[in-house]
Amino acid sequence: MSDASQLTSVLDRIDADFDNSLERLFALLRIKSISADPAFAGDCKVAADHLAKDIASLGFAAEVRPTAGHPAIVAKSQGNSNGQSNGKGTARPHVLFYGHYDVQPVDPLNLWHRPPFEPVVTDHADGRKIIVARGAEDDKGQLMTFVEACRAWKTVTGSLPLDITILIEGEEEIGSKNFVPFLEANKGELKADFAMVCDTGMWDPNTPAITTSLRGLVYEEVKIKAANRDLHSGVFGGGAQNPIRVLTRILGGLFDDDGHITIPGFYDGVKDLPPDILAQWKKLNLSPETFLKPIGLSVPAGEKDRLLIEQVSSRPTCDVNGIVGGYIGEGSKTVIPAEASAKISFRLVEGQVPEKIRKAFRDYVTARIPKDCKVEFGDHSSAPAIALDWNMKPLAAAKKALTEEWGKEALLIGSGASIPVVADFKKTLGLDSLLVGFGLDDDNIHSPNEKYDLKSYHKGIRSWARILGALSELPR
Amino acid sequence: MSDASQLTSVLDRIDADFDNSLERLFALLRIKSISADPAFAGDCKVAADHLAKDIASLGFAAEVRPTAGHPAIVAKSQGNSNGQSNGKGTARPHVLFYGHYDVQPVDPLNLWHRPPFEPVVTDHADGRKIIVARGAEDDKGQLMTFVEACRAWKTVTGSLPLDITILIEGEEEIGSKNFVPFLEANKGELKADFAMVCDTGMWDPNTPAITTSLRGLVYEEVKIKAANRDLHSGVFGGGAQNPIRVLTRILGGLFDDDGHITIPGFYDGVKDLPPDILAQWKKLNLSPETFLKPIGLSVPAGEKDRLLIEQVSSRPTCDVNGIVGGYIGEGSKTVIPAEASAKISFRLVEGQVPEKIRKAFRDYVTARIPKDCKVEFGDHSSAPAIALDWNMKPLAAAKKALTEEWGKEALLIGSGASIPVVADFKKTLGLDSLLVGFGLDDDNIHSPNEKYDLKSYHKGIRSWARILGALSELPR
Repeated sequence: MSDASQLTSVLDRIDADFDNSLERLFALLRIKSISADPAFAGDCKVAADHLAKDIASLGFAAEVRPTAGHPAIVAKSQGNSNGQSNGKGTARPHVLFYGHYDVQPVDPLNLWHRPPFEPVVTDHADGRKIIVARGAEDDKGQLMTFVEACRAWKTVTGSLPLDITILIEGEEEIGSKNFVPFLEANKGELKADFAMVCDTGMWDPNTPAITTSLRGLVYEEVKIKAANRDLHSGVFGGGAQNPIRVLTRILGGLFDDDGHITIPGFYDGVKDLPPDILAQWKKLNLSPETFLKPIGLSVPAGEKDRLLIEQVSSRPTCDVNGIVGGYIGEGSKTVIPAEASAKISFRLVEGQVPEKIRKAFRDYVTARIPKDCKVEFGDHSSAPAIALDWNMKPLAAAKKALTEEWGKEALLIGSGASIPVVADFKKTLGLDSLLVGFGLDDDNIHSPNEKYDLKSYHKGIRSWARILGALSELPR
Repeated sequence: MSDASQLTSVLDRIDADFDNSLERLFALLRIKSISADPAFAGDCKVAADHLAKDIASLGFAAEVRPTAGHPAIVAKSQGNSNGQSNGKGTARPHVLFYGHYDVQPVDPLNLWHRPPFEPVVTDHADGRKIIVARGAEDDKGQLMTFVEACRAWKTVTGSLPLDITILIEGEEEIGSKNFVPFLEANKGELKADFAMVCDTGMWDPNTPAITTSLRGLVYEEVKIKAANRDLHSGVFGGGAQNPIRVLTRILGGLFDDDGHITIPGFYDGVKDLPPDILAQWKKLNLSPETFLKPIGLSVPAGEKDRLLIEQVSSRPTCDVNGIVGGYIGEGSKTVIPAEASAKISFRLVEGQVPEKIRKAFRDYVTARIPKDCKVEFGDHSSAPAIALDWNMKPLAAAKKALTEEWGKEALLIGSGASIPVVADFKKTLGLDSLLVGFGLDDDNIHSPNEKYDLKSYHKGIRSWARILGALSELPR
């Protein structure tokens, strides 16, 4: 078989086997692998075992490996081809594929239209077929596009077109704290030429994209304590400090009237976009109408002197992700609570140092704590922003493959989200990452009714099949 | 028996029967009559039935009466003595006693040292004996001081020294919305010469007090809505409005640097204390050391240009009683929530009109809602402040009786708390109220580990016995 007819056979196989591909995804989606909640630790283990067994069936040596938290999976394609010819007299590359089997919590559960762990294919309001379940996109659907592409290659040709190590973790949604030491401890066996990560999105439902920059993240928890117990607001109201008053005053001051973040030093090191990139981005014309209207909004909430596309991809941000204090049940209670707390995260861009941002935020808060209150900080995670800098050959090959699959030029884009492991791959393993994914802005990841377009899943599998074929023709 | 020897016998009987009085209070405390939570509606009915049966055993015609919410109890002493001599040739007064059997919710439950509905007598840190349970003070312990005083009079003399209607409601903690129509519908049979309310406090553990002014209350709920669903802060952060940002900005602006409330018109109509009262209050010397230190605080949080005693009793206040939005579970979630909400209450003083305050607050919030957000308001309750104005004869008699029982001059004080029913008694039934109670600032009402001093309960019963005796000698 020629390379081209081989690929055609692989793509045909994907189409013919797609119902089974969907059923295999559903089996994974039914597992409640919520990493944030210790009650679901057993389900995380079940998900790891399930995936390892499935990947082993494709001829990988697949193992579930313990970490200090939820387990990881390491799977190596059999018959290491280092030194094997790619048909053009050179060795084929060895890639490290990364995904995660853990998912976000499902609350508020009452906003889901169906049980989050009972996947279905249904119709989106605009007629698109969608797969609905927690993890449908992030990241079970995405990682299965790659697994299914491997399956098709293996079925049709009896082997994989290049050396692959599949590495799947179970703590991405909670900051990968135990995964980074795992990388460090196993860096010898995780050697590869570059990494491939499937946890990003497309430009729109018909336009594929490769992500070349990612924002970083600092995630903080702040708890403010006042009295040594909850108080009655009739007896103590007016005399006793209220920690919600202190907390809202501090958080309410984080933005100025023009949407800039007021923490001193927050923008230190942040550079403007190069003029040529800015010109390109302007041409993309990301409008409130296309980006915000589907979520019921119309006014960009970020820095007023920036384009919307800058606000969501190249500018740093601050969001309060959660706040709680006092009585939150039905009805009323005249209480002055003893404490109040909030979860706050910052998306960082190139030039910002996570630890400096964390310190600047803590200094900002601490300076505003009145004498009678105490503040406690919690550090949930941090990662610097990343601008990908890697051998352009795999990038060009992947771009060409994506363009061929989707019939539309694949774009190189910046992502507003953080995938901290990309920095860890660089730092720990010395690997650059190729970020290809098939998510859409309306996938509701981290929200009720998470979905993945059926087309993303199907053409995602086909895309990886093409990328694997294209990469196998590259020199190491 | 002379009047004096009769009273001595009644007080002796109270002392001899005190263990049983305590057991009867415990039986009431074991009933989970939380009015705010529909799950406990059955328990509220059980509490009403239990109390009505007990009061009937004292020779009252006691009935549990339905309302549109939790039931009320109306109990009339038998053998109406209207026109009966008080031994001095004039009719004895007829009093309406008021209390409430409903209690506050118990959350946060994990902060209780024992189950809240399993009452015990234990030792306070400073050696005082205390009764610990939800409702130990507010208002089961307080109302039982009166019931037990009636019991002692009935046991010793075979009758009550004056005509009494006992009226007990089950919705005080949720704004008495259904109780006020009940008063209106039954005003004919609730006629009396004045009301007596046992839901207030002493000046300190050894100094009794009669409360002559009460702050009013406006309780609001605010919900701010932004996007039509929860969003991922990586995808939308920077571009999409965050309702917690809007809410904290609004609430964080409610106070200026000197502790004044910034809502335009909030202080309209508020008068300074008359110089003679201010001079008296200054002499009481309510210091942060005595008032705030026991709750772990040291700096009065109210208006900087006011005495602490003014801040907590004669000045209006604002407290955020609860706030919630976004992810509040363990760990982290990078979500921009679709909505955030808060419960906010205002303590009002004489001269402030509840509906004007409510409107001023809503206007203040509405003016600060950005274009992309919606706001919804909820009205939990409202009541004007009250300055008692009533026949000084019962007040003087009660003050004398309290002073005799406690061996210390009873003080006339202003309370920071609200007892809206006092205004309703005036408006609906035309009755002034005598406010006598035995609560203390450290009773943890509305908080975990609510308690009532054993001494408050015991001497509270004796106090009412003396007051009933003293009032029976007054002319109608």
